[in-house]
Amino acid sequence: MLILGLDPSLSCTGWGVIRVDGSRITHIANGQIPTDAKAPMVRRLSLLHTSVQAVIAEYAPDRAAAEEVFANKNAQSTLKLAQARGAVLTACGGAGLDVNEHAARLVKKAVVGTGGADKTQVQAMLKVLLPGAKLAGADAADALAVAIADAHLSYTPPSR
Amino acid sequence: MLILGLDPSLSCTGWGVIRVDGSRITHIANGQIPTDAKAPMVRRLSLLHTSVQAVIAEYAPDRAAAEEVFANKNAQSTLKLAQARGAVLTACGGAGLDVNEHAARLVKKAVVGTGGADKTQVQAMLKVLLPGAKLAGADAADALAVAIADAHLSYTPPSR
Repeated sequence: MLILGLDPSLSCTGWGVIRVDGSRITHIANGQIPTDAKAPMVRRLSLLHTSVQAVIAEYAPDRAAAEEVFANKNAQSTLKLAQARGAVLTACGGAGLDVNEHAARLVKKAVVGTGGADKTQVQAMLKVLLPGAKLAGADAADALAVAIADAHLSYTPPSR
Repeated sequence: MLILGLDPSLSCTGWGVIRVDGSRITHIANGQIPTDAKAPMVRRLSLLHTSVQAVIAEYAPDRAAAEEVFANKNAQSTLKLAQARGAVLTACGGAGLDVNEHAARLVKKAVVGTGGADKTQVQAMLKVLLPGAKLAGADAADALAVAIADAHLSYTPPSR
């Protein structure tokens, strides 16, 4: 079972693919899709969309996961984030992928053990959980974290 | 010159295509893309995206236009609207279409003559401006209005 984790944002969308066999998790790939802040909005959205489509085509994940979106105090930031999210989720929907959404606290709890963990703790724990994985950056790390959380949150131990 | 007007929303996205020859505007087509409120978000976004792609493929507009998005008091509504907008704009970007964005007040002013016009006034004026056009609904009417506004706002009278 392959899970694609996504951390959508207009300026740079992170993605990460992990393999899950029962309780065993291994790293497959991760990356980031930066967009040109000077380019028109539709071009940036389109780049996010086609790039996520390309990731899905290359790794053929079984499902996807993303953090639940929350309304920022800055309304303009929220709009940009949500538009980017729409472009990214559309790529998943077009490929027939379901996208599980998880609250940020649950993602941190699943990866680090506490919902209040900061980015440094999450990235340190990723190195332990996915030994050898080279992180493309902070957004890719967040994407891998949500993929791991998705694996944990949907894992059912085998009955004896 | 064909202009595609769009009124993106998650529950029902309106679209309308007009032909512009100098100051002359004629109706080509309009429609609405409703989505099933019970369907998963990614399926709804994907339906909006593929449906707008189909409209673009059928009518081959030269450019697109949409109302500027504004942050609603209800943050959750804003997020849903912006995600839908991302799915719709991505379809335009993927087809190489530029999307002009116009403030709602400017759209009403261009169509009715006053920025404070209500929906009924806009629809009544559409019947005058686009005689014979059958409106698919209120969302399609809003989409045609933004297309007309885009034509007006970018019209340059011929020099004598």
